[in-house]
Amino acid sequence: MQQIIDFILEIDKLKKVTRKIRVRGLDRFENPAEHSWQIALLATSLAQYAESAVDMNRVIAMLLVHDIGEIDTGDTMAFVEGGWEERKAAELKAVKRIFGKLPQKQSDDYLALWQEFESGDTPESRFANAVDRAMPVILNLANNGQSWRENGISYERVVKRVRPQIEAGCQALWDYLEIQLKEAQEKGLFGS
Amino acid sequence: MQQIIDFILEIDKLKKVTRKIRVRGLDRFENPAEHSWQIALLATSLAQYAESAVDMNRVIAMLLVHDIGEIDTGDTMAFVEGGWEERKAAELKAVKRIFGKLPQKQSDDYLALWQEFESGDTPESRFANAVDRAMPVILNLANNGQSWRENGISYERVVKRVRPQIEAGCQALWDYLEIQLKEAQEKGLFGS
Repeated sequence: MQQIIDFILEIDKLKKVTRKIRVRGLDRFENPAEHSWQIALLATSLAQYAESAVDMNRVIAMLLVHDIGEIDTGDTMAFVEGGWEERKAAELKAVKRIFGKLPQKQSDDYLALWQEFESGDTPESRFANAVDRAMPVILNLANNGQSWRENGISYERVVKRVRPQIEAGCQALWDYLEIQLKEAQEKGLFGS
Repeated sequence: MQQIIDFILEIDKLKKVTRKIRVRGLDRFENPAEHSWQIALLATSLAQYAESAVDMNRVIAMLLVHDIGEIDTGDTMAFVEGGWEERKAAELKAVKRIFGKLPQKQSDDYLALWQEFESGDTPESRFANAVDRAMPVILNLANNGQSWRENGISYERVVKRVRPQIEAGCQALWDYLEIQLKEAQEKGLFGS
């Protein structure tokens, strides 16, 4: 039991990591803990648009653990170019440290979920990655392009970066967002 | 699809609701979104201590939606006496409004999960309630009794309020916390 408590107190630190999206109506940045909660519910809510083979329970489990390595590494915006191999190696080291606080079986289970998410080579991980990639787009569309403008991210960079994973995991979601993104471009919600 | 997006933007507001626990190392209060993420992982991590009949996927689904009504009602500390019937009626009204943004089937599914959590009359909801009740205790034990001291909550009130639900849902967790709470009392971590 003490191992489980030590783990749950360790992951408490994810509430202190900052992403680039601000919580609408507040000045502070969103953190990966509340983000993980939100995408778990986005995935569940989108179930009707997932491939029939998708086990939604595993999708949710993946989404709940996928950002835990950021306790050690911090969050890196998806639009940063280069260095991803090193960052992912650092995140792997981090999750091994953090999951390693748990009894062996539970630790192995979480690590397998984290690795499946990163691999993106199962229907579940493709769907999970699509939802994770789509969430900041949905929030930016509702928040006047806040993190795109603050970080100078153009329409073209957004589409190039998010389209492949969203389309691969949830075509209907991409079809919806593609139209919204074009409208946002017309309104000037992007950086340059 | 637009209904799902409207729902996910509505529940974004849960990130702005404040609980009474401060995030360790920060001045701000925890919100129910990140709390829901944390207890979903606490439940998963405690699986070996759950009754064998417990469907952990339903526990997690319940925990992800159980606080959504607080978007309209705000969070009320568990130690507040009286008025719970009115507060729960207000929360029910709130979740009906919020889940009602979704297509009917998804809305019905979430409402059923919310009601099962509130009922506490299935193994899953008892386990989910135990985990929800235990989390602020675990955080207070690690944070020098912060919300107990700030709100003048005594050792006796904590035990009286949290013991029944934690014991009913996860005996091993209560056995662990009982010892920790007694040690915390000796250290003077409670209010009066």
